[in-house]
Amino acid sequence: MTDIDFQRILEGIAAEIRPVLAEGRVADYIPALARVPRDRFGMALSTVDGRAFAVGDADARFSIQSISKVFTLTLALQAAGGRLWERVGREPSGNPFNSLVQLEYEHGIPRNPFINAGALVVLDCIMDGTDDPAASILAFARAAAGAPDVDFDEEVAASEAAWGFRNRALANFLKSYGNLRHDADAVLDVYFRHCALALSCRELAQAFLHLANGGRSPATGVAVTSPRQTKRINALMLTCGLYDAVGNFAYRVGMAGKSGVGGGIVAVVPGAFSVCVWSPALDASGNSLAGTLALELLTTRTGISIF
Amino acid sequence: MTDIDFQRILEGIAAEIRPVLAEGRVADYIPALARVPRDRFGMALSTVDGRAFAVGDADARFSIQSISKVFTLTLALQAAGGRLWERVGREPSGNPFNSLVQLEYEHGIPRNPFINAGALVVLDCIMDGTDDPAASILAFARAAAGAPDVDFDEEVAASEAAWGFRNRALANFLKSYGNLRHDADAVLDVYFRHCALALSCRELAQAFLHLANGGRSPATGVAVTSPRQTKRINALMLTCGLYDAVGNFAYRVGMAGKSGVGGGIVAVVPGAFSVCVWSPALDASGNSLAGTLALELLTTRTGISIF
Amino acid sequence: MTDIDFQRILEGIAAEIRPVLAEGRVADYIPALARVPRDRFGMALSTVDGRAFAVGDADARFSIQSISKVFTLTLALQAAGGRLWERVGREPSGNPFNSLVQLEYEHGIPRNPFINAGALVVLDCIMDGTDDPAASILAFARAAAGAPDVDFDEEVAASEAAWGFRNRALANFLKSYGNLRHDADAVLDVYFRHCALALSCRELAQAFLHLANGGRSPATGVAVTSPRQTKRINALMLTCGLYDAVGNFAYRVGMAGKSGVGGGIVAVVPGAFSVCVWSPALDASGNSLAGTLALELLTTRTGISIF
Amino acid sequence: MTDIDFQRILEGIAAEIRPVLAEGRVADYIPALARVPRDRFGMALSTVDGRAFAVGDADARFSIQSISKVFTLTLALQAAGGRLWERVGREPSGNPFNSLVQLEYEHGIPRNPFINAGALVVLDCIMDGTDDPAASILAFARAAAGAPDVDFDEEVAASEAAWGFRNRALANFLKSYGNLRHDADAVLDVYFRHCALALSCRELAQAFLHLANGGRSPATGVAVTSPRQTKRINALMLTCGLYDAVGNFAYRVGMAGKSGVGGGIVAVVPGAFSVCVWSPALDASGNSLAGTLALELLTTRTGISIF
Repeated sequence: MTDIDFQRILEGIAAEIRPVLAEGRVADYIPALARVPRDRFGMALSTVDGRAFAVGDADARFSIQSISKVFTLTLALQAAGGRLWERVGREPSGNPFNSLVQLEYEHGIPRNPFINAGALVVLDCIMDGTDDPAASILAFARAAAGAPDVDFDEEVAASEAAWGFRNRALANFLKSYGNLRHDADAVLDVYFRHCALALSCRELAQAFLHLANGGRSPATGVAVTSPRQTKRINALMLTCGLYDAVGNFAYRVGMAGKSGVGGGIVAVVPGAFSVCVWSPALDASGNSLAGTLALELLTTRTGISIF
Repeated sequence: MTDIDFQRILEGIAAEIRPVLAEGRVADYIPALARVPRDRFGMALSTVDGRAFAVGDADARFSIQSISKVFTLTLALQAAGGRLWERVGREPSGNPFNSLVQLEYEHGIPRNPFINAGALVVLDCIMDGTDDPAASILAFARAAAGAPDVDFDEEVAASEAAWGFRNRALANFLKSYGNLRHDADAVLDVYFRHCALALSCRELAQAFLHLANGGRSPATGVAVTSPRQTKRINALMLTCGLYDAVGNFAYRVGMAGKSGVGGGIVAVVPGAFSVCVWSPALDASGNSLAGTLALELLTTRTGISIF
Repeated sequence: MTDIDFQRILEGIAAEIRPVLAEGRVADYIPALARVPRDRFGMALSTVDGRAFAVGDADARFSIQSISKVFTLTLALQAAGGRLWERVGREPSGNPFNSLVQLEYEHGIPRNPFINAGALVVLDCIMDGTDDPAASILAFARAAAGAPDVDFDEEVAASEAAWGFRNRALANFLKSYGNLRHDADAVLDVYFRHCALALSCRELAQAFLHLANGGRSPATGVAVTSPRQTKRINALMLTCGLYDAVGNFAYRVGMAGKSGVGGGIVAVVPGAFSVCVWSPALDASGNSLAGTLALELLTTRTGISIF
Repeated sequence: MTDIDFQRILEGIAAEIRPVLAEGRVADYIPALARVPRDRFGMALSTVDGRAFAVGDADARFSIQSISKVFTLTLALQAAGGRLWERVGREPSGNPFNSLVQLEYEHGIPRNPFINAGALVVLDCIMDGTDDPAASILAFARAAAGAPDVDFDEEVAASEAAWGFRNRALANFLKSYGNLRHDADAVLDVYFRHCALALSCRELAQAFLHLANGGRSPATGVAVTSPRQTKRINALMLTCGLYDAVGNFAYRVGMAGKSGVGGGIVAVVPGAFSVCVWSPALDASGNSLAGTLALELLTTRTGISIF
């Protein structure tokens, strides 16, 4: 891997995807997301042997949205361990991320921790062990990213709360099945805030690097997750991390990844590198259109993927 | 019809259904319903030519629950007319009364006004034209029943509100589709209260008699509904009034009816009579078990049904 | 009812629906149906007191398609009685007539005898008691219609068989659940033929008149069905007879009816009359568009409906 | 990897899983599968550097069932290339392998090539380019396994055909959507036969080894698949290869794999090895119960997985 010129590859990708930035649709369900210019594009890559590369708007912070679900899943696995799986499944859903249908057919057990209903249950687990779950999530994100000024975007959080009827429906639906222990409004409050974390590509690549390195952060030497947890989080990202386009992403890209409607995608190849790409316009599945293409080019040009 | 000895028939039915009162299951999702003794049974019948008959606990008030949806549908048809059908369908649902599945497949348009989601939309319509929808509903029920002391059971309403997570989910889900104009909590507040109306069999038979008489109350001479509205409300009761057992009820009983989980069923045969039966234990579909049997015996013994 | 001038009403309706004949879509899945001119319209009405009225193409024979399911249901109820309901439900489906979805969710028990899967089970029941089910059905149709030359349209039957992949899927699906005793191809052969019965409006009104008269044919005096069977068949038509538009039909028309994709609709008002209307162009639910409107005008102008 | 004592690890696994052979349920839908003794267990592993290891019944041939879908997918990709994806998706289904539900919701486009409906479309593609598709499949399997006497088990094929009502339903359903070009019975005939291929663990590990080696068979030096096809087939196996337990398999095992109801599972770790395990008793998802456990132990003990 040391013979690969990652910087040149990233620059080639940035040039090649430029025309694609005109395609797709920027998320517009809240004003703070809708006003992000569609021509933004950033990409950052960190290798397990300690090198880092970046291109474009790689230092601009954006709303990471569902990417934060990997942070909370990690916290919940550390807190609840295998008991988490009594309350949430780990199968791809085959349905949109905020669907209530499968939840009803499966009696209140969300299909996996990355659909919205599953993320609410994950937060509920975290809340068992802390009085200030938002602070715990923030502390984790700051430490993982090595960026002590990472914070929630309170405007985004407030907008999410104001327009979050579907998530409010999900939380009350979970509550009706007894699969939410804490007050629905309290869980939702944390949910809306943790979706509003703002990080840059460079920070996110750093924050996910331990997942490419058996759980240990090359930068700090700290074991963020155990080898077993690492393998499992990667498996969950690969099978459930890209909404209802996981098969397509595995087929085209071949990395374990997690996307957010803010246009970010973080992905890892175990033993090799973590990478984050950001471009706000989305494809029909809600994943960054140019971002997916950039990652596909990356695996094609480096010849590195998990398959 | 004047040759039928309704009183004797009701007494025969009351005797025959007695063993059945041990079967079925009393609704237990809130304490106020759970503690109603399962051996209660009442039945009252009012003919369009002004006679009234009753047997058993026909004067005991019970929680009418979903039966109140006929009152609110009537108010909404009077207020919004045909515009109501832009926001709610009129087909049987083929699904449980509180399912979110069909609502998602049909993009927020409830199948009919008698499933919970449809009833929430109906209330939302009523709220367009009044500042105090609960008072309007109460006034309608009192006038129809000819009983000025009819009221909400506030204990039941409070319990419904405390355990109404599924309905809270439905209201927020409707809101996410833009099919609820008023604040979800405000609509839910009216919803939980109107389910908690308490009336007796005798009062309900009276309150529905105009539907057997072309819309005009034989007691007061007042046209509660137009002939066309009357026909349509009856049609909706027949095709949608018995949760997901409308086909079975039409097959066995052959009247247009509406049931509630408090164990009441009101039914009408146009041109003949209205009848209300109450027995708290329910069958698997959520309809009064002994009540359905009593109505089946009634149509068999009188030879009167709509088919 | 004797004071109603049915002939004039039918003529008025025929004039009023004329512009509507340009709307809707003629079934085109087989050539024999596709080539029927969309401007055909016939209507025939028979009263229980022995009068008959007709207008337009009331004597033209057309492909009755699913209307024949009432004939086979009658034969199966006579042969199997209540045991039929162990193998088929009697609830409206809330799904298209040829859907496989509900059949899978409900483990091979069709929702009702009028959806295609239910009709296949009904035929399977009939085949238990006869070596020549097609002959039995034909004999029943001829006797009911009082028309000994009624026959299958073999061209239509052959086309149905050639393009009946969905029905072939349904039959094999039922077989996989053990809910078809006879060979799938044998059941399908009868199915495709019985859909291809050709009768006129006048013949169909006659063939259904006993259902408006407690089961007894006014013409022959023969009790075709018992009073109880009559009531039940009418109930099934009202709750399940119009594909997924039963609620709308009950709301607008208010009769128990059965439609076919050939453009025919037969309906009855117990105690009053049977009526058949035919116009080949269909609405989105697969029911005759002008036919539904004609029946709505009939109940409005006569003031006679079951509600 | 050369420092791992694979033989000792396999022997340890064989000993450890022994008690588990009493659990699960042997497929019994056809006699030929039902009579396989539940205590059979075999495992074989082939490394990309040319070594091979085996334990237990690794040379006993068994019915590979759905594992053969990887052979046909490979043939179809070689024949049709990307055009295949116009007729079949590549997302996990979230539903049982033989469900008709999703097929109806998605208008006849199967979710992926490994559910039964998808495999039928794959066969239909292969049939475009050959008059004897069964011979082509057999030739491919023989060459890949390096075993010229591999053959269909005609008894199994005949049983599958006799009891294959669900597959017959699927084929006719696809036909109704126009997504099957050839005669349904002809496609089904190939389908039933290709499920009846009989190979041993050792042969299957060999037959899949090219997928762990960038597409090139280490034994013959032949490029069976291109690097890109290889990566894509592995991605499809990982996201869709284990019925509706792909997430669980990725989480516990972490290999790209394909299972069959005969109790076989083949899996690969790109760059490392292919492995086949066989044990006939299945878990609730239809995957070999002891086989899944054996593969989980393998990744745990070797420390080798794709995550």
